[in-house]
Amino acid sequence: MAIDQLSTTFAALADPTRRAILARLVTGECSVTELAEPFNMSLPAVSKHLGVLERAGLIARGREAQWRPCRLDAAPLKEVADWTERYRAIWEGRLDRLDSYLTQLKVKEKKHGRKQRGK
Amino acid sequence: MAIDQLSTTFAALADPTRRAILARLVTGECSVTELAEPFNMSLPAVSKHLGVLERAGLIARGREAQWRPCRLDAAPLKEVADWTERYRAIWEGRLDRLDSYLTQLKVKEKKHGRKQRGK
Repeated sequence: MAIDQLSTTFAALADPTRRAILARLVTGECSVTELAEPFNMSLPAVSKHLGVLERAGLIARGREAQWRPCRLDAAPLKEVADWTERYRAIWEGRLDRLDSYLTQLKVKEKKHGRKQRGK
Repeated sequence: MAIDQLSTTFAALADPTRRAILARLVTGECSVTELAEPFNMSLPAVSKHLGVLERAGLIARGREAQWRPCRLDAAPLKEVADWTERYRAIWEGRLDRLDSYLTQLKVKEKKHGRKQRGK
């Protein structure tokens, strides 16, 4: 049962801790201990997340025995961007319509001299 | 245990059938039966996938009792695109370096008059 790369990438990204780890790695290589610090999480828990990211090709790890620094590999994210891009026209169309609806709403508000609180 | 929207979206996208359903809906509204056709999949199996997509806000369903057409809602995909975009500089840097490496390789090949087969 081979799972396609894009599905593996999306599954790896479906967790806020794993996304925070990737964001941290933008600034450079990190040890597991450094990565664990901001999360109030045990090293084994962080290692598990790193395993998911590594299998998805989103991070790579150094081979030094004691210090195995993690570094970001953003290549799978290009695939995500390429896939998502196909839908841009649709959400932009949708948001344009929402924009014009909100503009109409504001014009009506002004005409009627009313104030509405945002929900 | 509230799961954030972005995690829900990524989890919903981590399946090739669900992504194929979204691609099909780009062309317009569809019934569940129409969506099931190309997949050689039972209606309950397709309905399960639609449930995941609906909970993620990626599709909406009509309220007509017999024919509940599905339509794409691409708004959560904008969030995916915005998140992914932050990493563009990184993968472009990486690919630029790969490009220049491949260019160097070709120059070397020409100089040596050798031909190498791509792996």
